[in-house]
Amino acid sequence: MEIIKSNAALQTILKSSRWAGKSIGLVPTMGFLHAGHLSLMRRARQENDLVVVSIFVNPTQFGPNEDLDAYPRDAERDTELLLSENVDIAFFPLAEEIYPRGFTTYVTVEGPMTQVLCAKSRPTHFRGVTTIVAKLFHLVSPDKAYFGQKDAQQVAVIQQMVKDLDFDLQVVACPIKRETDGLAMSSRNTYLSARQRADAVVLFQSLTEAQQMIAGGERSASAVVRSIETRIKPVQDAIIDYISVVDAKTLADMERLEGEILIALAVKFGKTRLIDNIRITI
Amino acid sequence: MEIIKSNAALQTILKSSRWAGKSIGLVPTMGFLHAGHLSLMRRARQENDLVVVSIFVNPTQFGPNEDLDAYPRDAERDTELLLSENVDIAFFPLAEEIYPRGFTTYVTVEGPMTQVLCAKSRPTHFRGVTTIVAKLFHLVSPDKAYFGQKDAQQVAVIQQMVKDLDFDLQVVACPIKRETDGLAMSSRNTYLSARQRADAVVLFQSLTEAQQMIAGGERSASAVVRSIETRIKPVQDAIIDYISVVDAKTLADMERLEGEILIALAVKFGKTRLIDNIRITI
Repeated sequence: MEIIKSNAALQTILKSSRWAGKSIGLVPTMGFLHAGHLSLMRRARQENDLVVVSIFVNPTQFGPNEDLDAYPRDAERDTELLLSENVDIAFFPLAEEIYPRGFTTYVTVEGPMTQVLCAKSRPTHFRGVTTIVAKLFHLVSPDKAYFGQKDAQQVAVIQQMVKDLDFDLQVVACPIKRETDGLAMSSRNTYLSARQRADAVVLFQSLTEAQQMIAGGERSASAVVRSIETRIKPVQDAIIDYISVVDAKTLADMERLEGEILIALAVKFGKTRLIDNIRITI
Repeated sequence: MEIIKSNAALQTILKSSRWAGKSIGLVPTMGFLHAGHLSLMRRARQENDLVVVSIFVNPTQFGPNEDLDAYPRDAERDTELLLSENVDIAFFPLAEEIYPRGFTTYVTVEGPMTQVLCAKSRPTHFRGVTTIVAKLFHLVSPDKAYFGQKDAQQVAVIQQMVKDLDFDLQVVACPIKRETDGLAMSSRNTYLSARQRADAVVLFQSLTEAQQMIAGGERSASAVVRSIETRIKPVQDAIIDYISVVDAKTLADMERLEGEILIALAVKFGKTRLIDNIRITI
């Protein structure tokens, strides 16, 4: 595995691979890797000649009062995991190269897609995501790029960007990885106290119950939202940010459930904001 | 020469060229070609195996009260000129493919560079430029892209975008082409009445005189601006939009002249807005 820090070194090594006709799979991450990330790497490993994983806690996707400084980091452990997953290139970009003095260009997906769900409490988040992802796409020129479906809105926004700006690559959305009790894996789970960690299982439980309601014939979005709300509200420390039922592709609100739908939620346990979702075809 | 209209056809033909190891030069234009455009194509022809010219009157770079509908078009004449310049691929994109229903992603260079000069009277212009240019870069993946220095601010903004977003290509800025009397070539010159056309020569004359003042030792930006203003103001029909002396790279205002400077102006003759500039190293 090559461990690369500078943009120029990355582009040099990839140019020779591309000339050799190798297909490239990119897995962009913020590190502190868990089984969710590893599942993306395995999928990339199956589908490409060369696997590039980037590890960069991207400052532009954090708001001023968010957890940028506290975000967990462990480069040594991450490197071991990348080695064990047979990754070809580990890219640890330098913040000063990614955002040099005078940096001023942003890629923005406008419209409802970046105004709903997480965007309500994180208004500049997706602009940071699309900008860093566009930069990584330019630096790596992957054939395929892998993202976890846990960040469902992120996946939708990136797919919109790729389509609108004619990026010549395929976005691959991979299923959510969960702990044995159902909690969606997240680097932020490490923030939870023991009790919060135990309580957080309510997120997946409430989503599963909603899924059962819909399987049983429920077609009202507000009834589904109410049922999830009723399950989560009594939990100590849990403060609901949002519970939404939307069109899975456009993220537009819907009342009568049909087609591909996404039930998404964000809940704070103390200072820790967790998200989860479930995608259902009706 | 291949005449291509669809994005998919363009990408297919270019993929085979790229696999054959050919270098690609891109000349993005809005058509109604003149000798300025042709000079870009000749430079691209010298420096690349394959020359791609795009012809697209890009709606997103026109403001609501600008000349989008009136902008001159002549696809037949343009095609003949492209043939005579030995261009390999003429790309006439379809507006509905470039901006399909639901299009919502923009690339924006923020900050002073897109707030000064032309941006003051055309606030959404550069966002339209950077968005279409990013799309063309993705569709063509050129090694080099050629732009005329007449649109000096456009060149500076595109160079900033390329640097900030890590586009793997080189922006080549080519010298302004002028009519024999000095008027900078522009598709918009066709709008001018005979008298306006004759009067418009004052733009280049005033820039040349400014250059001579500076060669003679003048180092005050406001003195230079005043001298240009004094030359243009008396001209019938001429309404000054701006006359500015700025740092050639950052476009930041300066008072004491030093280094690489750009003297840029925009003047309206009736409804026709003309721009011109001169770059001087002190």
